[in-house]
Amino acid sequence: MEPVLIYDTTLRDGTQGENINFSAEDKIKIAKRLDAAGIHYIEGGWPGSNPRDQQFFELAKKVRFEQARLTAFGATRRPGIKPEEDVNITALLESRTPVVAIFGKSWDLHVKTIMNSTLTENLAMIGDSVSYLKASGKEVVYDAEHFFDGFKESSEYALQTLATAVENGADFIVLCDTNGGTLTFDIETITAEVFKYLKQRFNKSSADRIKVGIHTHNDCGLAVANTITAVRQGAVMVQGTVNGYGERCGNADLTAIIPILRLKMGLECVSDENLARMKNLSRFVSETANIVPLNSRPFVGKSAFAHKGGIHVSAIMKESRAYEHMQPELVGNHRRVLVSDLSGKSNVEYKAKELGIQLGGNGYDSRKIVSRIKQMEQAGYEFEAAEGSFKIMVEKITDQFKPLFDLESFRVVIEKDRDRPCSAHATIKISVDGRKEITAAEGHGPVSALDNALRKALDRFFPQVDAMHLVDFKVRVIDGRDGTAAKVRVVIESRDSDDIWSTIGVSEDIIEASWQALADSFHYKLTKKDEEK
Amino acid sequence: MEPVLIYDTTLRDGTQGENINFSAEDKIKIAKRLDAAGIHYIEGGWPGSNPRDQQFFELAKKVRFEQARLTAFGATRRPGIKPEEDVNITALLESRTPVVAIFGKSWDLHVKTIMNSTLTENLAMIGDSVSYLKASGKEVVYDAEHFFDGFKESSEYALQTLATAVENGADFIVLCDTNGGTLTFDIETITAEVFKYLKQRFNKSSADRIKVGIHTHNDCGLAVANTITAVRQGAVMVQGTVNGYGERCGNADLTAIIPILRLKMGLECVSDENLARMKNLSRFVSETANIVPLNSRPFVGKSAFAHKGGIHVSAIMKESRAYEHMQPELVGNHRRVLVSDLSGKSNVEYKAKELGIQLGGNGYDSRKIVSRIKQMEQAGYEFEAAEGSFKIMVEKITDQFKPLFDLESFRVVIEKDRDRPCSAHATIKISVDGRKEITAAEGHGPVSALDNALRKALDRFFPQVDAMHLVDFKVRVIDGRDGTAAKVRVVIESRDSDDIWSTIGVSEDIIEASWQALADSFHYKLTKKDEEK
Repeated sequence: MEPVLIYDTTLRDGTQGENINFSAEDKIKIAKRLDAAGIHYIEGGWPGSNPRDQQFFELAKKVRFEQARLTAFGATRRPGIKPEEDVNITALLESRTPVVAIFGKSWDLHVKTIMNSTLTENLAMIGDSVSYLKASGKEVVYDAEHFFDGFKESSEYALQTLATAVENGADFIVLCDTNGGTLTFDIETITAEVFKYLKQRFNKSSADRIKVGIHTHNDCGLAVANTITAVRQGAVMVQGTVNGYGERCGNADLTAIIPILRLKMGLECVSDENLARMKNLSRFVSETANIVPLNSRPFVGKSAFAHKGGIHVSAIMKESRAYEHMQPELVGNHRRVLVSDLSGKSNVEYKAKELGIQLGGNGYDSRKIVSRIKQMEQAGYEFEAAEGSFKIMVEKITDQFKPLFDLESFRVVIEKDRDRPCSAHATIKISVDGRKEITAAEGHGPVSALDNALRKALDRFFPQVDAMHLVDFKVRVIDGRDGTAAKVRVVIESRDSDDIWSTIGVSEDIIEASWQALADSFHYKLTKKDEEK
Repeated sequence: MEPVLIYDTTLRDGTQGENINFSAEDKIKIAKRLDAAGIHYIEGGWPGSNPRDQQFFELAKKVRFEQARLTAFGATRRPGIKPEEDVNITALLESRTPVVAIFGKSWDLHVKTIMNSTLTENLAMIGDSVSYLKASGKEVVYDAEHFFDGFKESSEYALQTLATAVENGADFIVLCDTNGGTLTFDIETITAEVFKYLKQRFNKSSADRIKVGIHTHNDCGLAVANTITAVRQGAVMVQGTVNGYGERCGNADLTAIIPILRLKMGLECVSDENLARMKNLSRFVSETANIVPLNSRPFVGKSAFAHKGGIHVSAIMKESRAYEHMQPELVGNHRRVLVSDLSGKSNVEYKAKELGIQLGGNGYDSRKIVSRIKQMEQAGYEFEAAEGSFKIMVEKITDQFKPLFDLESFRVVIEKDRDRPCSAHATIKISVDGRKEITAAEGHGPVSALDNALRKALDRFFPQVDAMHLVDFKVRVIDGRDGTAAKVRVVIESRDSDDIWSTIGVSEDIIEASWQALADSFHYKLTKKDEEK
C-alpha cells in the first residue's frame, strides 16, 4: 500500500498563528524532531518573504535529514516577468532544498480584483513557474490557493489552473481551503469532481500518475474532517501543522490526522514507533512556541484520556474500550483518572493505588472518602487539579499522615510608600522533631516571601528543598455558597528536576489558602522522596 | 421550515470536563444566558448524582425562562426494579422540569460486561423508564449511549433499543457517539441506516413523527463535522456545549455548530440577533468557568478573524471575502489586524467619546494612545475587561487625570499561629487636598483589609463610598515574556446601588496589583459621581 504522505507546514503556515514565533534555531530544532517522527515533507519557510526564513535555510544546509524532504515555499512568478527574473523564485532555488512548493491563484476574484491581472496571464504564471522549477531539477508541489472557493464560483477556471500545473510537470497539486469556510460535504463532492475532471482531461496512465494533496484550515472547526474526507476521495498528500497551529483558527492538526489515518482508516503514513511519538512531538512544539498545551487536544492532550464520571471509571476497570475509543499508549499518551465530587468509589480506589496509599485501615474506606471529598468540594476544594493535596488529605483521613514539620507561627508584612513599589517580607517559625527554626525572607509579594521563608527554614533539615520551586500560582474567588464571605481557592504548581505536582488551599483569606497549598507542596514532595529511598 | 433544535448540556456534560466546575449559582447564571441566546433546551444536571445539581434544580424552580425548556438528566431504571422504585428516576420527577432526558444502553458489550444484565432486561429498562416518565407528563429525550459503537458490533440490537424507546413514547431519540471515536463517514452511513430502519419498522405517519437527535464528542477532532453530518441526514436536535467544554477532548461545540447551521447550511435554529450574541455567550461561559478563552476557537475566538500576513491584510482592504469566509459581526466577533496599530484608532475614539474624554489636547491623539495600549497589553494589562482603568489610563496620558486622593503609605500585616486561622490588618495613610488621614482596619485577607482601611480613610471626605463594595476579585498569573519573574493580573469588580465597574492592576506583587485596581476603582466611581452632579 502506498503511504499517505505527511507534509508539515508548522514552520511556515504555523507561524502565521497569533503569538507563534520561532527563531531560525527553533525552526531547526523542530525540523529535526519532525524528521525523527517520520514526517515526509517539511516546509521550512518562505525564503523570499523574511530574513528569518532565509537564515533558516542557510542553517538547514548543514543538517542531514533521515527521511524528510525539506521544502521551500513561495509564489508563482509575478505578472509580466519571466520566472528567472523573479526574486522570490530565485530565493527558492538559492535555498537548495530538494522540494519547492509554490502557490498560485485558482479563484477568479483574486486574479481580477486583488492581483489586477487577467485569467490568461494567471495560467501563464502557473505554467511558467512550475516548468522553470522542474527544469531546475526540483520536486514541485503546486498549492492551488482558494481552490474550493474558486471552484464554487467558477469551477471551469479553477480546474483549468490545476490542469496547467499538471501539464507543466507539477509532482503534486494541492487543493487548498485557504479561508477555511468550506463544509465537509463540499470538500467531498468538489474533490470527487477534481478526480473526474483529471480522468477526462488526461489519458488514463497520465491521470493515474497525478498526485493530489489537501490543505485545510479550521475556521469552521472542520479541518480534520475535511482532510480525511479528501484522503478518502483519493488525496495522497496531507498538509497540516503540529497542534493545528496557524493563522486565525489554525491549520489541520497533524497530531489528530496521523492517528486517524493510521488507527481508524488503516492507511500507511508513519510507523508504529513514530505514532507513539505523537504526544511528545506535540509537547515539544508547544514548549518551543511557549504556548500552553491544550489539555483537550484530541489524542495528545493531557485530558484526552482522563475520566471524571464514576460510572465511566468503574466501567473502564472492567473493560477499557467501554469508555475509551483506543489505547492511549499507541500515540504515547496515557489514561488518567480524576477525582472530584462527580466521581465515585472506583476513582478513589484507582487513585489510591496509584499513589501507594492503603485504604480502610482505620475504618475509612473508599465510600467514606468519597463522601468527605464531596463535602470538601462543596466547600470549594478541587482535587482533580491538585493530586498532591489529594494524597495528603487521604493520608490524614486514614491516619497515615506523618507531618515532617509543624508551623509555630508566621507573620507577613507588606509595605508601600507613595509611588514606590510594594515590599513584602515574612518571618516564620517551624519545628521539626521538636527542634525549632525561625527565619525571615523577602519576596515578590506575600506568597513569594512566605515561600522563601519556609524554604529557608526547611533547608537545614531537608536540603533537597533547594531543587524545588514554584512554577504557577492560580487564584480563584469562589462564591460564598452559604451567604458567608467569598472564599479564595489557591492552586500551586511546583517543580523539581524531574517532577511537577499541584496542591490546593481554600480559605476566606488568600494568605491562609496559599499557606495550605505551600505546606502541602513541601509535604508531598518530601514524603515522596522518602518513599523512593 | 422547522428549526434545528439546540440542546445545550454545558451544565451537565460540560462539567465532566477537566477543571470545569460550576457552583449552583454559576449554573443559574449560565442557564439564564443560554435562554437569552435562544437555546431551545437546557440540560441542567443529573439530580440523582450529586447535591450541587439537586441544589441547582431547587434554585431553578424560581426562574422563569423565556423560551428554553429546562431538562433534568438521568439514567433508565436499574435492573430488576420498577421505575417508581428507582431513586434516580424519583429525583428526576422531583426536579419538576418540563423535560427529562434519560440515557440507556445500546451496546451489548455494556449490557453484558459492564452492567451484568441481559439484552432483554435492558430493553425492558428502556421501555419501562420512558413510558413511566411519559405517563408522568414529561417530554422525554432518550439518549442512546454508545449508539454508534453498539451499531458497529451488533446493529440489530442497537436499532432495537431505539425502537423500544419510540414505541414507549420517547419524543426524541438521540444517537450518541459517547467515546468520540467514530469517523464522519460512519456517522453518515449509520445515521442513514437508522432512518431506513425506522421507516421499515413503523408505518409512514409514525416514522415521519420520530425526531432524531445527535450527540458527539471530540476525541478525533470531528465532533462538529459529525454533528452537521447527522443533521444533513435528518437529525433535528443537536446536543452540545458552549465552547465544546466536556470530558476528555470535549463535546460538540455549539459556538461553531450554530453559525454553520445558520450561515453555511441555511437552516433555522436561532435568530440573527441571537447569532450575534454567540461570541459574548462563549466569553461569559469561559469567564464563569475561569478557563482562559481559546483564541483560535472557530467563529468566536479572539484570533478567529485576526490577520497577520501582509498579503492578507492588503487584500482584505480591497475585498473582505478574499481572506474571510464570513462577516465576523454576524457572530458578534470582529476583524483584527495584527501587524498595524491603525486597527485600534477608531475603537479608541469611539470609547473615549463614550467615556467623555477629550483626545489630542496635549498632543496625545488616538494613534499614540493605541500604541501605548499595545505596550501595556504586552506587559499584561487587558483593558477589554476593565473599563474603569481604561478611562483613568487615558485621562493620565492626556493630562486630564485629577487625583482625588494620594497615597502616603500603607502597611498590611498577616499573622498565623499554629492551626489558628490567619488574621490580617492594614494601616493606611492618605491625603486629600493636603489633609492627611491615617486609619487601620481588619479584613478577610490582605486585600480585604486594605480595602476596608482605604474605605474608612476616604469616608471622612467622600461619604458616598459607603454604598460601594467589592463584588469580585480575579487573579491570574501571566507569563513573564522576557524571562523576568511572573506577573500577576488582578481584576476587581465593584458595585454600588446602580452601577458595576471593573478595574485592573498588574505587578509582580499581588498586593501592589490589587492596590492599583482598588485605587482605580475608587477614583473611577468618585469622579464619575462628580461629573453627574
